[in-house]
Amino acid sequence: MIPTLEWLPAGVNFLDQTKLPLEETYVLATDYKQVATVIRDMIVRGAPAIGVSAAMGVAIGVDRSTAASLPALTEEVAVIAKTLAETRPTAVNLFWAIQRMRDKYNALAAANTPIPEIKAALIAEARQMYDEDIAACKQMGAHGAALLPQEGTVLTHCNAGALATCGYGTALGVIRAAVERGHKIDVFADETRPYLQGARLTAWELLHDNIPTTVLCDNMAGALMRQGRIQAVIVGADRIAANGDTANKIGTYSVAVLAKEHGIPFYVAAPLSTIDLATAHGDLIPIEQRAATEVTHSNGKQMTPNGAAIQNPAFDVTPAKYITAIITERGVLRAPYNESIQQMATEANSQLTTA
Amino acid sequence: MIPTLEWLPAGVNFLDQTKLPLEETYVLATDYKQVATVIRDMIVRGAPAIGVSAAMGVAIGVDRSTAASLPALTEEVAVIAKTLAETRPTAVNLFWAIQRMRDKYNALAAANTPIPEIKAALIAEARQMYDEDIAACKQMGAHGAALLPQEGTVLTHCNAGALATCGYGTALGVIRAAVERGHKIDVFADETRPYLQGARLTAWELLHDNIPTTVLCDNMAGALMRQGRIQAVIVGADRIAANGDTANKIGTYSVAVLAKEHGIPFYVAAPLSTIDLATAHGDLIPIEQRAATEVTHSNGKQMTPNGAAIQNPAFDVTPAKYITAIITERGVLRAPYNESIQQMATEANSQLTTA
Repeated sequence: MIPTLEWLPAGVNFLDQTKLPLEETYVLATDYKQVATVIRDMIVRGAPAIGVSAAMGVAIGVDRSTAASLPALTEEVAVIAKTLAETRPTAVNLFWAIQRMRDKYNALAAANTPIPEIKAALIAEARQMYDEDIAACKQMGAHGAALLPQEGTVLTHCNAGALATCGYGTALGVIRAAVERGHKIDVFADETRPYLQGARLTAWELLHDNIPTTVLCDNMAGALMRQGRIQAVIVGADRIAANGDTANKIGTYSVAVLAKEHGIPFYVAAPLSTIDLATAHGDLIPIEQRAATEVTHSNGKQMTPNGAAIQNPAFDVTPAKYITAIITERGVLRAPYNESIQQMATEANSQLTTA
Repeated sequence: MIPTLEWLPAGVNFLDQTKLPLEETYVLATDYKQVATVIRDMIVRGAPAIGVSAAMGVAIGVDRSTAASLPALTEEVAVIAKTLAETRPTAVNLFWAIQRMRDKYNALAAANTPIPEIKAALIAEARQMYDEDIAACKQMGAHGAALLPQEGTVLTHCNAGALATCGYGTALGVIRAAVERGHKIDVFADETRPYLQGARLTAWELLHDNIPTTVLCDNMAGALMRQGRIQAVIVGADRIAANGDTANKIGTYSVAVLAKEHGIPFYVAAPLSTIDLATAHGDLIPIEQRAATEVTHSNGKQMTPNGAAIQNPAFDVTPAKYITAIITERGVLRAPYNESIQQMATEANSQLTTA
């Protein structure tokens, strides 16, 4: 089991993903501000993982609070939630998880629950979200495995794996589930510039599980598709709008267009907590712009001339029309997505973000 | 004028493109083997530039020869040509240039020309090819400028600029010509993994000429196209088959598919020496595979886990159907390309590669 993050009595322990694949080191966050820093600096990343991380951040913030009254603690909870919510803008799981923790807190506070009991309940809630996240990944795997070829090469972009979740993974969970069911799958992993989540993280965790993995530069997938060397594409998601438009790591949209051009199925795997019913379509999803230095510098060395402008959007939006299916823990969604998503929302309302 | 390469009495002087953009250093090749190394190690790169470099390699090889008889010199010429031809497989300009030098040599040898005169004539031929290359770039610019928007953003991939030629550039030459004619053009430069010719070279030479340039990761162009932020694409070519299929830097094909999906014109700019009539279609073009370390390592640091397989094709093939027009020094070719290329071949037969 790859230890992406873990609740410990001393704090929240994070595998430092900025140091992978050659160094396996850990960062222990002992207060909520450190959890926020860990999320912002991408020591942990991946929409489901940062959701649970933020929940644990709320839990640790409340647990470490010295507030002596419920009104004082309520004020602190608002500050904790705001701090954690301001770390990254695109993945909706972050806001979903914080809201779930606030809802839990508010219910307990409204019932005048003693503060020690509230602290214990919030820790339990965050740990339950951790367990639910792994269970959801396993269920996505069970629902999605049959969509992947019995034998063939599957392309993935970025890291939607154990490292992007509390374990097992979304897109890589579906690949793992297919392999466990006897599919012979080779993975092509886009290296995923500028942060190289594919080269560093996806390749690391798949090889850890003995799944053959080839790293390619992002600009190679199209040529390999044209040569018939890719049979399916599967990626994760940072936010899925009510109509199925999907925000995911920058470059996902290009892969989707290339898949369509070559008649290759393009799958998204994500838990329901990634679906944002309050966002009608993808162009309303806020897209994080990250620092230029991620593009200009490589291992400390400047690669671009002085004076060059830089683009560095962390995500793009793939319109629903390019998506063959969305694999969730409750089943596989198909177009028309506004209908299939709405139907699943009705069945599982509490699991869906509406904030 | 950007000094990509230059014939000097002491040898062929190359701007070391592996050191750009932060260091402007030169490598002086004083014999043909050093020229071959400079081409193989990509100190010089770009199809037109390596063509002229190889011609200068033949010239310096013959010039430095101590052969006392024509038969001995002829044998040496064969060795020189073979050494230079084995440096890189895809760009046809290399073979075209070597063949032109051999044809020149053979004609002089057949006429029993004295060796000192042959040496002088081959140096003159290589230097003439240098001048012709710059002139061809200027002519491509004149023919192609009107195809670019009066005002807008033009995407380019890799470096098809002054640094890929003896000066001015093919694709970037067309951009320069448009700017000189008053077009207001911003350039988006794909960084072009793994070798970063876009980030390092295209940005450097365009900023040198005060043309506003933004560097993007290769996986960002699709999202920017969807946002309406790119009005045209222009790239160079390493080999154009008789039917218009075009081999160019890996990733070009993906850009072409994305351009088609968004209704954006996709132009190729290349001299006639890049057209290979002996290759019927693109799938017959040999594609160079380069070392895995170009992908796995970045500034000396390993970025992928041990055990990951690697893809590193240096080029891909863009089928003619994606190409809006091919800009040459003799005019603009349009589909159906097998007809338009054949017609131009008839008009300019001696300039086209048939070997």
